[in-house]
Amino acid sequence: MSENLYDILIIGAGPAGFSAAIYGARAQLKTVMFGDHTKGNLYKSHIVANYLGFPNAITGPELTALGLEHAKTFGTEHIISEIVDLKLNEDGTFTAKDDKQREYTSKTVIIATGQSYALSGIKNEKELTGKGVSYCVVCDGFFFKNKKVVVIGSGNYAGEETLQLLNYTKDITILSHGKEFNFSSEIKSALEKSNIQAIKTVRIKEITGNGKAEKLTLTDGSEMVFDGYFMAVGVAGAVSFAKKIGIEMNNNYIKVDLDGKTNIKGLFAAGDCTGSPPQVATSVGNGCNAALSAIKLIRGLKIYIQYD
Amino acid sequence: MSENLYDILIIGAGPAGFSAAIYGARAQLKTVMFGDHTKGNLYKSHIVANYLGFPNAITGPELTALGLEHAKTFGTEHIISEIVDLKLNEDGTFTAKDDKQREYTSKTVIIATGQSYALSGIKNEKELTGKGVSYCVVCDGFFFKNKKVVVIGSGNYAGEETLQLLNYTKDITILSHGKEFNFSSEIKSALEKSNIQAIKTVRIKEITGNGKAEKLTLTDGSEMVFDGYFMAVGVAGAVSFAKKIGIEMNNNYIKVDLDGKTNIKGLFAAGDCTGSPPQVATSVGNGCNAALSAIKLIRGLKIYIQYD
Repeated sequence: MSENLYDILIIGAGPAGFSAAIYGARAQLKTVMFGDHTKGNLYKSHIVANYLGFPNAITGPELTALGLEHAKTFGTEHIISEIVDLKLNEDGTFTAKDDKQREYTSKTVIIATGQSYALSGIKNEKELTGKGVSYCVVCDGFFFKNKKVVVIGSGNYAGEETLQLLNYTKDITILSHGKEFNFSSEIKSALEKSNIQAIKTVRIKEITGNGKAEKLTLTDGSEMVFDGYFMAVGVAGAVSFAKKIGIEMNNNYIKVDLDGKTNIKGLFAAGDCTGSPPQVATSVGNGCNAALSAIKLIRGLKIYIQYD
Repeated sequence: MSENLYDILIIGAGPAGFSAAIYGARAQLKTVMFGDHTKGNLYKSHIVANYLGFPNAITGPELTALGLEHAKTFGTEHIISEIVDLKLNEDGTFTAKDDKQREYTSKTVIIATGQSYALSGIKNEKELTGKGVSYCVVCDGFFFKNKKVVVIGSGNYAGEETLQLLNYTKDITILSHGKEFNFSSEIKSALEKSNIQAIKTVRIKEITGNGKAEKLTLTDGSEMVFDGYFMAVGVAGAVSFAKKIGIEMNNNYIKVDLDGKTNIKGLFAAGDCTGSPPQVATSVGNGCNAALSAIKLIRGLKIYIQYD
């Protein structure tokens, strides 16, 4: 494993991820950063006027390009694919899986996924959470062994959650909830091999049930009945990863200390996903902090990784 | 008072101060920043390679110039003089005094003085602290009423501490501790009017005494006897202000939360003086955070300032 073991694996290619990557790579650590840099909030910003050093302002795409170039200058490996799963291994390392179904193992992880948490907007979603509605296959899949379940979502994250559900049941439907499906070719072919029904639907209006989710109703009035309802709208964000491996949260944000540390050793977070102000300045500072903490951990005396 | 009342007063003209000023002024708040931008660690940095946005690196003076220009672009008032005193007023505002003996009152203060804490290096300084050795005239001057005291330091901060000591005693000597005196003309003339003895000395070797500071010995072997020994080496930094108004510290750093808040309402801190890593990235992030907290406080419902 050692030759493929990364030191720092960064999930997210926005300003927090870039800054973490600059520090990680410059410290001569094997650093990889995942994510499509054109999908984040910085890239979508027309003008950034308040990031120190650019008194005449700079556009989001320009600052994104500078940040990406800067991270790569020191040797960061940038992989544009989307991370859809994250696991904490028994030896303290982490394994992330991307939408090409490739796995990457790293001593430390910095989550910098931005403000990506998306509620589905389906009525009663919150009320029925834990009562048939779940956000985490690895947490709750077991409770639906051989049951009839639905995954709600249209992207790679929904696809990955579905593939993981196959460990518990074969009776799985995916509903796109008003969007076109947008799976990577690898996830698409894995789903097809497993005879998963992927149904493009109009938006889902509500989930109803008496103390327990019993059925869902589409906006066209039609109804569908399942035992379990797995929510996987949007991309896998901080909340998804947090639920999978037990990261302590503060509302829907990853709880970090002043050094960017979470409650899990070797796992750090930076930027908007921590509830920090959604500013380039704070994200860049957070990313630096998290990377310095990772570097200290890796270089420190508390070595807890088995290199074999 | 209202027309001269600032919203945000920033002590320090490095990256944390610049970033705070950018946010404060851009929020249309009356923002003033104090300090000589050519005296800080950023300006003295040959090359800054890891601040996101400058993949080809930038020199310290260049980034300082951009930061200062950026802060001024939005209307920040920059005053190059040195803040030598800070007071918390009864109405919750703060009054800072500079080395020209001018006073400035503000609703909020952001301390961003950098890593300026300088121990004198005099032997037994620490051991005799609180036993005749003091770092704070406003805290301890009273204990030396009509006693013979010495102030150790060569700059405006030492001058200001001396002028404040005049409230308690006339028998004051200033020893420069191996440096040339470097007072502003205002402080110099105020000291001369009060018949203060300012003696340029070789370095002071040690302060000695049996459970209480009794005398000091210069490196040339000569001895001098005082009742009180006030340390005021270097510029007035975070530690000096902290002692004056009771800011909670963490070792020699100002204790802040994730929002840059100290234990005192309206008082924030950012950058190296908080023990944050001495990096432009984190200082810029901290400055942003502290300013956003100040803005929220000023604009929020909890109005605690009397505008009269």
